Amino acid sequence: MIILDGKIVAASVKESVKAKAALLIREHKKTPHLAAILIGTNGASETYVANKVKTCEEIGFKSTLLRFDENVKEQLLLDTIKKLNVDDEVDGILVQLPLPKHISEEKVINTINPSKDVDGFHPSSIGKLVQGLPTFIPATPYGIMLMLKHYKIDTVGKHAVVIGRSNIVGRPMSILLSQNTNPGNCTVTICHSRSKNLTEICQQADIIVAALGIPGFLKANMIKEGAVVIDVGITRVADATKKSGFSIKGDVDFENVAPKCSYITPVPGGVGLMTIGALMMNTFAAAQLKIKN
Amino acid sequence: MIILDGKIVAASVKESVKAKAALLIREHKKTPHLAAILIGTNGASETYVANKVKTCEEIGFKSTLLRFDENVKEQLLLDTIKKLNVDDEVDGILVQLPLPKHISEEKVINTINPSKDVDGFHPSSIGKLVQGLPTFIPATPYGIMLMLKHYKIDTVGKHAVVIGRSNIVGRPMSILLSQNTNPGNCTVTICHSRSKNLTEICQQADIIVAALGIPGFLKANMIKEGAVVIDVGITRVADATKKSGFSIKGDVDFENVAPKCSYITPVPGGVGLMTIGALMMNTFAAAQLKIKN
Repeated sequence: MIILDGKIVAASVKESVKAKAALLIREHKKTPHLAAILIGTNGASETYVANKVKTCEEIGFKSTLLRFDENVKEQLLLDTIKKLNVDDEVDGILVQLPLPKHISEEKVINTINPSKDVDGFHPSSIGKLVQGLPTFIPATPYGIMLMLKHYKIDTVGKHAVVIGRSNIVGRPMSILLSQNTNPGNCTVTICHSRSKNLTEICQQADIIVAALGIPGFLKANMIKEGAVVIDVGITRVADATKKSGFSIKGDVDFENVAPKCSYITPVPGGVGLMTIGALMMNTFAAAQLKIKN
Repeated sequence: MIILDGKIVAASVKESVKAKAALLIREHKKTPHLAAILIGTNGASETYVANKVKTCEEIGFKSTLLRFDENVKEQLLLDTIKKLNVDDEVDGILVQLPLPKHISEEKVINTINPSKDVDGFHPSSIGKLVQGLPTFIPATPYGIMLMLKHYKIDTVGKHAVVIGRSNIVGRPMSILLSQNTNPGNCTVTICHSRSKNLTEICQQADIIVAALGIPGFLKANMIKEGAVVIDVGITRVADATKKSGFSIKGDVDFENVAPKCSYITPVPGGVGLMTIGALMMNTFAAAQLKIKN
């Protein structure tokens, strides 16, 4: 059993983007530039955005952080995005989710210029992903693909089971794994809350992506010997032994599942660490796109 | 075993759109208007477009047919689409595929204003479909959904196997069937040319959508008793007994498969007949959208 180490792969992705960015800066005087919009003071969102900004610094990208009060008017937010859309200095735009309830997530995302949509949530980005066209892939599925690639995991003709049909993980994951690419070319089964016989379905899987958000859901009896298990869960569970008062749990009963696997991602330390690297890949691609056009 | 009769369902869909269009004309002085672009003189394309125009007439829609020579310049085509995009009289635009080789299908489709993209091939339309937002659904998958609905086939929690991952049938079909809608909420397995153990996978299916384009591919031993079988294949096979010299064959070995099914679509007379009705639904929706905005 081999642990798919998010730390190692993320570091390798960052190194690679850093080198490519250095080349872009040298040859085209173009520094990739990410603009991040953060609304309110949600603790998790603060941490995510801070890490994104810090990573930009580490790999030689520019970044701009625009902060808004919890009560910001939707129109001000949309106008800000429109300005960033036409700002030649800015390559990628991300709006940290979730948004306050009075703001339409759909409107906000649809306002981002698709050529700067580094989160890959715009319908046009998702549509291109489905059609196999060059596009920005949402960070979590992209991170998983980078991980499978890094460890040279053979996916062709394998049966992959994706548990969860969310727009940001399960759905794009199921599409990417079934495309005529490498990694890819899996037979893919997508399961969700209305699925029956989940145990029997998972038992057939060569590759399982668990993205349903129920800690410890995937048990040892649900997987076959030698399966590849990708755990996307990151649920905060109360834990009195931790200073923070919680620990992070994945969707997989790791202790019992891991011994049966050929490869498995830990939580924490697995997929979660890949997302920022994926975002940086997208931001680099956005900058590169601008030079080509 | 019940035959899913495309003729009956298509007639019912057309009647329903006709009634809704009459209301739109009466209450809003708005006649749905489809503009179709046809390039060259391909026999099948001629027939398809002629049927679309004829159906428009039958149900009280306006239609405009724009014909171009096989050698038309790409730019002229793009300019024509741009004019239709801003023409307030036109609600839906379709460009009959396939296109001559010197014209980029991607460019042509991406030029169509997404709010008039009644074929549902624009990345933005596909993206919205993935995200479960209101959009134009490509005609074949839409037709199949209308058929499942008409016959009140229970899909919730069922295992659907889709054979084929094309952008216009297999892929959108797999997405629609797995969404939290009715019909929908299936566990969906998408298979393709690189899939292994196809027989075993199909044997588990409560619903099979065969969209691979190999006549008679799906045999009786591949399905379980009581399955619902949807045949999307429409291959022309040489047939000396026909005046045309060919007959149309589906992907299903109908004669042997039908007795084991609960429901099955024939070819011809099944899914193929649904596509024009679906297109008319989309064109009506485009006209209605314009009134709302």
